[in-house]
Amino acid sequence: MTRPLSLHPDRALPADPGVRAIARRLHEHTADLPLVSMHGHVEAAELDADEPFADPAQLLVVPDHYVTRMLASQGASLAELGVPRQDGGAVETDSRAIFRRLCENWHLYRGTPSRYWLEYELVEVFGVDVAPAAETADAIFDRISARIAEPGFRRLALLDRFAIEVLSTTDPATSDLAHHAALAERGYGERIIPTFRPDAVVYLRRPTWRADAQALGDLAGVDTDTWAGYLEALRSRRQAFIAAGALATDHGHDDADTTPLEPADGERIYAAALRGEATAEDERRFAAGMLFEMARMSSEDGLVMQIHPGVLRNHHDDVFAAHGYDRGFDIPEHVEWTRSLRPMLQCFGFSPRFRCILFTIDETTYSRELAPIAGAYPSVRLGAPWWFLDSPEGMRRFRESAMETTGFYNTSGFVDDTRAFASIPARHDLARRIDAGHLARLVAEHRLEEDEAAQTAVDLAYTLPRESYRRLSA
Amino acid sequence: MTRPLSLHPDRALPADPGVRAIARRLHEHTADLPLVSMHGHVEAAELDADEPFADPAQLLVVPDHYVTRMLASQGASLAELGVPRQDGGAVETDSRAIFRRLCENWHLYRGTPSRYWLEYELVEVFGVDVAPAAETADAIFDRISARIAEPGFRRLALLDRFAIEVLSTTDPATSDLAHHAALAERGYGERIIPTFRPDAVVYLRRPTWRADAQALGDLAGVDTDTWAGYLEALRSRRQAFIAAGALATDHGHDDADTTPLEPADGERIYAAALRGEATAEDERRFAAGMLFEMARMSSEDGLVMQIHPGVLRNHHDDVFAAHGYDRGFDIPEHVEWTRSLRPMLQCFGFSPRFRCILFTIDETTYSRELAPIAGAYPSVRLGAPWWFLDSPEGMRRFRESAMETTGFYNTSGFVDDTRAFASIPARHDLARRIDAGHLARLVAEHRLEEDEAAQTAVDLAYTLPRESYRRLSA
Amino acid sequence: MTRPLSLHPDRALPADPGVRAIARRLHEHTADLPLVSMHGHVEAAELDADEPFADPAQLLVVPDHYVTRMLASQGASLAELGVPRQDGGAVETDSRAIFRRLCENWHLYRGTPSRYWLEYELVEVFGVDVAPAAETADAIFDRISARIAEPGFRRLALLDRFAIEVLSTTDPATSDLAHHAALAERGYGERIIPTFRPDAVVYLRRPTWRADAQALGDLAGVDTDTWAGYLEALRSRRQAFIAAGALATDHGHDDADTTPLEPADGERIYAAALRGEATAEDERRFAAGMLFEMARMSSEDGLVMQIHPGVLRNHHDDVFAAHGYDRGFDIPEHVEWTRSLRPMLQCFGFSPRFRCILFTIDETTYSRELAPIAGAYPSVRLGAPWWFLDSPEGMRRFRESAMETTGFYNTSGFVDDTRAFASIPARHDLARRIDAGHLARLVAEHRLEEDEAAQTAVDLAYTLPRESYRRLSA
Repeated sequence: MTRPLSLHPDRALPADPGVRAIARRLHEHTADLPLVSMHGHVEAAELDADEPFADPAQLLVVPDHYVTRMLASQGASLAELGVPRQDGGAVETDSRAIFRRLCENWHLYRGTPSRYWLEYELVEVFGVDVAPAAETADAIFDRISARIAEPGFRRLALLDRFAIEVLSTTDPATSDLAHHAALAERGYGERIIPTFRPDAVVYLRRPTWRADAQALGDLAGVDTDTWAGYLEALRSRRQAFIAAGALATDHGHDDADTTPLEPADGERIYAAALRGEATAEDERRFAAGMLFEMARMSSEDGLVMQIHPGVLRNHHDDVFAAHGYDRGFDIPEHVEWTRSLRPMLQCFGFSPRFRCILFTIDETTYSRELAPIAGAYPSVRLGAPWWFLDSPEGMRRFRESAMETTGFYNTSGFVDDTRAFASIPARHDLARRIDAGHLARLVAEHRLEEDEAAQTAVDLAYTLPRESYRRLSA
Repeated sequence: MTRPLSLHPDRALPADPGVRAIARRLHEHTADLPLVSMHGHVEAAELDADEPFADPAQLLVVPDHYVTRMLASQGASLAELGVPRQDGGAVETDSRAIFRRLCENWHLYRGTPSRYWLEYELVEVFGVDVAPAAETADAIFDRISARIAEPGFRRLALLDRFAIEVLSTTDPATSDLAHHAALAERGYGERIIPTFRPDAVVYLRRPTWRADAQALGDLAGVDTDTWAGYLEALRSRRQAFIAAGALATDHGHDDADTTPLEPADGERIYAAALRGEATAEDERRFAAGMLFEMARMSSEDGLVMQIHPGVLRNHHDDVFAAHGYDRGFDIPEHVEWTRSLRPMLQCFGFSPRFRCILFTIDETTYSRELAPIAGAYPSVRLGAPWWFLDSPEGMRRFRESAMETTGFYNTSGFVDDTRAFASIPARHDLARRIDAGHLARLVAEHRLEEDEAAQTAVDLAYTLPRESYRRLSA
Repeated sequence: MTRPLSLHPDRALPADPGVRAIARRLHEHTADLPLVSMHGHVEAAELDADEPFADPAQLLVVPDHYVTRMLASQGASLAELGVPRQDGGAVETDSRAIFRRLCENWHLYRGTPSRYWLEYELVEVFGVDVAPAAETADAIFDRISARIAEPGFRRLALLDRFAIEVLSTTDPATSDLAHHAALAERGYGERIIPTFRPDAVVYLRRPTWRADAQALGDLAGVDTDTWAGYLEALRSRRQAFIAAGALATDHGHDDADTTPLEPADGERIYAAALRGEATAEDERRFAAGMLFEMARMSSEDGLVMQIHPGVLRNHHDDVFAAHGYDRGFDIPEHVEWTRSLRPMLQCFGFSPRFRCILFTIDETTYSRELAPIAGAYPSVRLGAPWWFLDSPEGMRRFRESAMETTGFYNTSGFVDDTRAFASIPARHDLARRIDAGHLARLVAEHRLEEDEAAQTAVDLAYTLPRESYRRLSA
C-alpha cells in the first residue's frame, strides 16, 4: 500500500478546537519570519565548499544520530547504515540500501520528532508526496536525488530558500576560521558566523589535548607551555572569532561546576597535563576552573556563553572505538546547577557585559533550579529545550514547567541546534507551532491577551534569539 | 495605547468547553467560601499597628520578592526598586518611580502567577480598570493611593473584606507574642494566630544564633547554657505559642534529615556552638537532630509540624550583604525525603498526636517520595504546592502527579504562604480555580462523579486546611 | 443515599470531544484482545489449588497493599484490616467488618487507580450496581460472596472469563516448580508460566539467605559452598525454569548498579557471607555483581531480564516486624541508570540473545536516562509504568515523556504487575484506554495517521508484550 504524504496546516497545534483557532492566528504571526539560527552544528567547510549533497542517505540518514540510533536500537548495526568507521572496518556504501532501511522501518519513528522533521523535509523541501515504506523507498530516493542535483538545492542557495537570516556554526578553538574568511569574501560574513567551542582544549583527558593546546598556541602566536600562556592564547583566539563575526561561545561540559582554580593550581595541573600526568580529579577541577575562566573572558569581551552539561558521551566503548563521536550513544545524567554555577554567578552574575545561556536535558532542573536562576540573575538566560527535549512534548513541558518562574523574556528564544542542514526549517516550524499552542492555551484560559500572545510568539521565534545573542544592539 | 483590565469569570479554568462547564459549576461551590490561611508571612506587628499601607510601591512592589527579582533579572538593581539596604547604601525613595518601573515592564510578567495575582488585586481590591503600562502607571498609582487611604483598606478591615476566617502569622521562637496579645485583647485572638518558627535558634551558623538562644532562655525563664536547658526553653516557648492560639510550627531546613542526636552529642555540639566552635558538620547534624526533637515535642504537645526544605538561601553574597533575607535570590536544590524522614517516621509516624505537613519545591519528589509517604503514614500530610510551584501549571502538575497515590484526603488543602497581604484572596482564588479544573477533568473523563468532585473541591479549599491544622476538633 | 455504580463506556478517555471520538475508535481495536500477562504476582500455589476465593475482604482488601495502606494512612491499623501478622499478634477476622471499613472510606480513593480498578471489578466481574458506602457495604459483600461461590469464579475458570492468554507468575529461585508441573499436567503449561526471581539468594543481608543458598544447591544438585558452585546452581535452576516454560527473570534491586565482581572478589564475599561476616559494602557489591552475572546468563540462555530498582523496602521497622513484606510501606528513591547499567551494556548491550526490560518508579529518569538508553541499545526495552505509576496520569506522563525518544517499539508493551487476580482485566482495560487517548491526541494533532495509531495500539496491548518476552518467535 502506498500511503500519501502531506503536511496538515494544523499539524502540531493543540487538538481543542477553540485553542487551535487561537493557535492558528498566533502562528500566522511567526510562520513567515526569517530563521535566526544562533546555535547550529553545520560545518563551515561544507558551507564553504557548497557542493551538492551527496545522496539522500548521506543527507538524511548517515549523519543524523537521531535517525541511525533508532535503527540501531532495533538491530541494525551502524556499519550497515553507512556510518563511517574510524577503525578501518567496512561500512555499507550502497546509499539506496541505506535509505531503504529507513523507509522499511518508518513505523519505528511514530511519535518521534525525527518523523516530524523528516516528513517536513520530504514534503516541503523535496516535494515528496508518498510516505516512506519498503515499496516507496526507491521512488523517494530518486525524487530527492533529482532535487539535490539542482543548483538551487546547494547549501548557500538553501539559505535563501529557507529564509535563514543568520547561521551560526560551531568551531573548535583551534579552527583557523579559513572557511569563514572565504565565506566572508563571498559576502556571507554577516550571515554565517562562527561560535567558539574550546571543549577539546579544556578536557585534558582527550587524546588530542596536547596537540590541540599546541595548535592553539601556534594559531595565536603565543607560547602555551604555561597555563598563563594557554589562557592568553584562548583570549587571543576569542578575539579572532569576534573579528570573524562570532557572538558566542559553546561549552559541553560533563557537569556545571564553575569552581575557579587558584592560579598556582591552574599552573600545576596544566604542567602535569603537558607531562601526561594529570589525574582524573585534576581533569575535573581543570574543566570547572576553565568554565569560570571562560565566564571571566566573556565578561570582558562580551561573547555570549552557552553551557550545556550533563551527558555521558560515548556510553559504549566499542561503538566509540569503531565510529567515534556523536553516534547516538550519548546518555544524559542528572545535573546539579544551584551550587555548581554559584562561583561563576557570585563573580559575574551582575556583570553588565556577561551573559550566559543555560541548556539542559535534565528536565527536573527546569522548575527547581534553572527557572529560579534565570528568573533572578540578569546575566542568565534559559536556553531552548535541547537535544532529546527539542520535541513537541518536550517543548510543551518546557513552557509549562519553566515559564511561570523564568518569564518568557529571560529565555534565549528558539535555537535549532542541528547538524542536519535540511532539517533547520522543520525545527523552527515545529517550535513555532508548539509555542503558538502554549500561548493559545494561556489566551483561552484568560491568562494572557491575544495581542500580547502574538507579540510573545514573535519574540520567542525571532526577537529573543537575536537579542539574547546580541545580534540586536542593546 | 491604554489597554482595559478586567477579570474574566472563566480565568484559569480549562480551555475545553465541556470541562470548563463542569469546572464552573464546581467552582461555584468554593468561590464564596471563607479563606483559611494557616501558613502565612504577614507580620503580626503590622496587623497590630493596623496603619494604612504606605503607598502602592511599598504595598505591591518593594516587599514582594517575586516582583522585584523579575525586574532585577532584566537589569534593575534592587536599590533602584527601593528594596531596603542593611549596609547603609542608598535606595530609591520615589515610590511613583518604583511603581512606574513595574508598569513599564509589565510584559515581563506574562504567564507568571505574579501577573495573575497582581491583576486580581488591581481589579478586585483596588478597582483599577486599565492594564499597567508606562502611560497608565501614574493613574494606577493614584487610584491605589486613594483606596489605601480609606479606613476600609487597613489590614484588619481587609480581614472582613477578604472573608479571612483565620490568618496564621509566622513568628520566631524568640517572639514575645506581644502583638498577638494586643490583637487578642481587641478580639482577634481566634482569628490571628501565631506559628512557632525556631529556625533562627536551630541553625548554629546564623550570626544571631547565640543572642537568639540567650533571648529564648530569657523569655522562657530557663537557663539555656546547656542543650537540655535549651530544649526545655523551646518546650516552654511552644506552650506560650499554644496559649496564644498557635496550631503549628514551621521549619525551613537546608534538607530533610531527621537523624536524632545522642544526648551526649547534642550537649557537646551545643556547648561548642556557645563557644563559637561548632563545625559545619556539627551544624548540619544539629539541625537534623533538632528536626527530630521538634517532632518529638509535636508528638507531645500536638502542634502540627510543617517542614519545607531544599532551598539554598541567599545564593548571591553581595545581594545578601546589601539587602538581607528573602530578596528572590534563594535557589532550590534537589531534596531527598525517603531516607531523611525515616528516623522521624520510625519513631513518630504512627503517634496519634503527631502530624507533619511536608512542602517541597522539588517537583521530582511528588510521585517518587512524597505521595507514597503521605499515602501510607497516618501522621503525614502532603502540603500544597509551595513558592515557585504555587502557580497555575505548578498546581496542576501537583494534582496530576501526586493525587493518584496520596489521595486528596492526605493533603493539607490550600495554604497561601504569602507575605503580600493584598494577594491573599488572589492566591485562594487561583487555587480554587485550578482545583476546579483538575476535578472537572476527572468528572469529564468519568473518573469521578460530579457531586463527589464538588465535595472534594470544598474540602480542598476549606475543610482540609481546617482539619489538617486541627482547627476542627478531631 | 445509595449511589448507583456503572462503568461509563468513555471512562478514562480524553475529555476533548474530537480526541475522544478518535480514542473510542482506537480503543475498539484493542478492547477485545486477549490479555498477555507477562509480569504478575499471582501465586502458582493458588492457581494450582484453584479453591474458591475466601470472601470479599480476603479477595479485595487484605492482600492489596494499595488498598490497605490508604486506609492505614487515615488511621486504621493494618491489624484492624485483617493483614496477617507474623509476630503472633491478633488481627481482625471479621471479613464483613473489614470490607465495611473499605466501603465507609470510599471517598479516600477518589482519583486513585485503586478506585478505578475496584469499580471495574465490582461492576464487570461481580455485577455490583451500587457504589461502596457504609449503607451498601453488606449488600455488596453478599453479592460478591455469592459470585465467588460459583464454580465459574475460581481462578482457572477466570482465566477464560478474563481472556487471559498467558499468565506469568513470579517464583523464587528456590521454587521446586511443583505447582507449575501440576498445572502443566492439567494442560496449563503454556498458559501459566513461571518467572525466575533470585533476589532472595542474591541479597546477602536477608535473614534467610544462607538457608536459601543451601536450598538452591539442594534443588540443583550442586554444591553451593563456593561462589562458582552457587553460580552453577543458579544456571541450573534457570534451565529448570526454562523447562517449565519460563521466558524471563525478575530483579528487584536496591539500585541499578551492574559493576561485575572479579572472580576472586566474588569468592571472597561469598565465603564471608556463608560465615555470616559479609559487610554492608560486600552486600552492595555482591548484588551489583550478581546483576551482571544474571545478564551474562541471560545472554547465554535467552531468559529476558527484568530490572526494577529504587525502592527502600519496609520503611517502617515495626510494620515490617509485625506484618512482613509488601504492606504498602515501601518508599521509592532516586535511581541512577546511566552509569549503573554501563558495565552490563558494555558487555551485553549488543549481544543478540540478551534482552533486558527496565522498570522505574522514578519518573525523572524517563526522558533523561531510560528513553535515551532504550532508544539506542538493541538489547534494551523500556518497561511499562510500574507500581505507583500504573495509573491514568502516570501512564499518560510515561507516554508523553518517553515515547518521543524511545519510540513505541522499544517498549515492553503493557504488563499488569499485580498480585490481585481479579484486578488483571481492570488494569489492562485502563492501560488500553490511556494508550488510546495518547495515540488519539497524536492523530488529532496530525502527528500520526489514524491507521498507524490503531496498529500501534494493538502492538502496545498485545503484540509487544508477546514479542518483548519472546513469546513470538523472533
